[in-house]
Amino acid sequence: MSDTLLARLTEVVGATHVLTELGGHPDLADYRGVYQGRALAIVHPGSTAEVASVMRLSHAARTPVVVQGGNTGLLGGATPDESGRAVVLKLHRLNRVRAIDPSNDTITVEAGCVLQHVQEQAAAADRLFPLALGAQGSCTIGGNLATNAGGIQVLRYGNMRELTLGLEVVTAQGEVWHGLRGLRKDNTGYDLRDAFIGSEGTLGVITAATLKLFPKPVGCLTALLRVASPEDAVSLLGLLRQRWGGALTAFELFSGSVLGFVRARLPDKPLPVPDLDEASWYALVDYADFSGDPVQQTLFEKPLADALESGLLTDATIAQNEGQRQKWWHLREHGVMEAQATLGRNVKHDISLPISRIPSFLVQSQARLQQRFPALFIIAYGHLGDGNLHYNLVRPESLPLAEFIGWEDEIHELVHDLVHEFGGSISAEHGVGQGKRDALLRYKDPVELALMGRLKQAFDPEGILNPGKVLPASVWPGA
Amino acid sequence: MSDTLLARLTEVVGATHVLTELGGHPDLADYRGVYQGRALAIVHPGSTAEVASVMRLSHAARTPVVVQGGNTGLLGGATPDESGRAVVLKLHRLNRVRAIDPSNDTITVEAGCVLQHVQEQAAAADRLFPLALGAQGSCTIGGNLATNAGGIQVLRYGNMRELTLGLEVVTAQGEVWHGLRGLRKDNTGYDLRDAFIGSEGTLGVITAATLKLFPKPVGCLTALLRVASPEDAVSLLGLLRQRWGGALTAFELFSGSVLGFVRARLPDKPLPVPDLDEASWYALVDYADFSGDPVQQTLFEKPLADALESGLLTDATIAQNEGQRQKWWHLREHGVMEAQATLGRNVKHDISLPISRIPSFLVQSQARLQQRFPALFIIAYGHLGDGNLHYNLVRPESLPLAEFIGWEDEIHELVHDLVHEFGGSISAEHGVGQGKRDALLRYKDPVELALMGRLKQAFDPEGILNPGKVLPASVWPGA
Repeated sequence: MSDTLLARLTEVVGATHVLTELGGHPDLADYRGVYQGRALAIVHPGSTAEVASVMRLSHAARTPVVVQGGNTGLLGGATPDESGRAVVLKLHRLNRVRAIDPSNDTITVEAGCVLQHVQEQAAAADRLFPLALGAQGSCTIGGNLATNAGGIQVLRYGNMRELTLGLEVVTAQGEVWHGLRGLRKDNTGYDLRDAFIGSEGTLGVITAATLKLFPKPVGCLTALLRVASPEDAVSLLGLLRQRWGGALTAFELFSGSVLGFVRARLPDKPLPVPDLDEASWYALVDYADFSGDPVQQTLFEKPLADALESGLLTDATIAQNEGQRQKWWHLREHGVMEAQATLGRNVKHDISLPISRIPSFLVQSQARLQQRFPALFIIAYGHLGDGNLHYNLVRPESLPLAEFIGWEDEIHELVHDLVHEFGGSISAEHGVGQGKRDALLRYKDPVELALMGRLKQAFDPEGILNPGKVLPASVWPGA
Repeated sequence: MSDTLLARLTEVVGATHVLTELGGHPDLADYRGVYQGRALAIVHPGSTAEVASVMRLSHAARTPVVVQGGNTGLLGGATPDESGRAVVLKLHRLNRVRAIDPSNDTITVEAGCVLQHVQEQAAAADRLFPLALGAQGSCTIGGNLATNAGGIQVLRYGNMRELTLGLEVVTAQGEVWHGLRGLRKDNTGYDLRDAFIGSEGTLGVITAATLKLFPKPVGCLTALLRVASPEDAVSLLGLLRQRWGGALTAFELFSGSVLGFVRARLPDKPLPVPDLDEASWYALVDYADFSGDPVQQTLFEKPLADALESGLLTDATIAQNEGQRQKWWHLREHGVMEAQATLGRNVKHDISLPISRIPSFLVQSQARLQQRFPALFIIAYGHLGDGNLHYNLVRPESLPLAEFIGWEDEIHELVHDLVHEFGGSISAEHGVGQGKRDALLRYKDPVELALMGRLKQAFDPEGILNPGKVLPASVWPGA
């Protein structure tokens, strides 16, 4: 059976694009090495028509298909299981920019395009594609769509979902839905687009998308702002949203203690924060300048001056040049992660909360963790403007790694239980994959889980698309 | 059977809330009187729990349920069919604002809340709920969600879909999905929210929603701008999006000939447009001021001055006071409709197109219409910033109404065929209902229609929710 399938797949995509000698192949594991699987073959189709043929053949053979983009996910959503039955469908050859329409502010790209390439193509047309995240040099648009990627400009431009107007999708049965619309308004039936976005390859294979573009700011003003508490950070966010209007494009929060941790762990790298106060909190904020008029500097600075005068801000530093700005953003995007990595494995959470409840969440989570695990150090930082925190726990050097790893499940449960009590989400932007699949049983509304199962049954009744991902087995047991 | 059901419904919601003497009841017709139906009863539940009970009873009895909000729809989506078998579920008693959280910028409201009431509640908390449309004094949030309402600020804030964070939904089977999240990021499974939004009561009954709020601008600057052509209007839109950044909140286009038509049809009302040039085109634009700084006037005017100098603008008038601004907006929101109404019935289209293709669409549609129906007058205006045109045809007074009505189907087909050729949508913001249901067969991708049918089958296999709406019978034949 599988030999026949392999022969037919080879006919469709060509022998050089069907890999079957897979010992140690990197695409059978996630990039962190946490998940490891096996596969019948890794297939590299070169067009939507080839993807459709692969799906028809796999569907006829009842062979599972695991779609993979840049393989930068954190929860094993693109890693096949250990059965070795699946075909891994790697879409990097679908990498054309099919169209760019500056007057309509849209770009149509194939799923295998690397995010940074799309950003660059937009910039070349004097436009902005605003999705921006750490992995942008290797993650692909298909993966961004499959996981509804977020990142640092969501408070202004939205998640991948809000940035997408149309999709081209190959169904589980190998049909092609030609849904590449470049329309801001279209109310002619059910919203299938958003059913596929965020479904992590379990409902269909996204092969192309029409995405929104935006005017490119002519400049960006950046400040590092110090406040006394998370409450004050929330007030500051409200003030800047109000006074800066649509010009506020990023609002990132760090605790001073996290910055102190970075300084201590990376002693060779000067921390770009003068007079660090570890008891304070810091916000890194971007203001987009569209007019290029020098008066923007005044509009940018006035609310900061008012906040200093009122005491809401205890300090404010404005980036004097692009180099200073880049140092702050490097600290945000890479410095904190590097500092954590010096201690090996840590326990990560990608959570979101109503913004108004973040201050009390931080107090209560710290209290509960310190009661149960007094030795742990809390790394809390992230996208306050989206209510999205990266909430990580690192071990002290004195604690053996094995003991720390033994606590992992209990730490996750403690944090996620509290997130749930606060009306939050246990996966803000990383998705579900394998890693959080069974946690959904604990935290999701049972009616919602049942509806998810019905949707899966409707679109992929044979269960060949990315089995074992997103849906707990009791919600959708598979075909 | 139906007597038993009525008795049980009465037990659940109380006798005063089950109407069965329905002769001439206005809720059995749409407000324009185009669609007329019959019903077993009109039921007014007072809570989500009562809605769930009504759905459980109706589902057990296999009785259709037609959900209705403010009954302001244009396509018969909330009007029952003529069988008289359906229960009409009117949600106006679900009208509580359940919560408002200014720090999270969210408001949680029940489906029966009137849109204008939600706008006012947001304003009272110093926030903006940006959905704004002509029917806002009577349409409800439930109807806005069911049809994914649009309106005049979509280019800045999005449609109802983009304004919604969470939903509470009663399923066809009478279960309650508690999905009222106030989160900007949540990637824990399939996007059920957007499956229900825009489904016009055919997939579930939306009973409440958590909606996004925004900072309230402290002022609004408005201009009426004259350009030579639709091409120049598209260029002007691009310029203002670029130079004004997020401050551009509305961009409405009229042809000068439409304004001349308004002046001719409403001779008692002075047209608030000086020196009207019927061969030109006019854009009504809003600029939101968030800072309150007098320098905003400069930022607002500078691109207009540049456009005048370059010749892109041939004239520009800036509103000198709120009264002048209101006159222009009244012309947009009411004047054009009033002028059309003086000639009785007209043929309306609610279409969207890629913005870049609107100029050539206008040329080609006019050519095709004039060839076939030389007597007709074209009323083209609408939300250029969203690619959404209201494209209406009015008869000359010399043409008998009956003859004009006889052309109606052919006019629709001519216009919609061209919209389809241009990659547009035949329903930008009004939905499908009964009126455009069968047109979907002509214009929708067959794979898309099949997926819609599968979704309906998954969520409402007995077909009790709003039968005969949205889905053509060949796509989903009913239970």
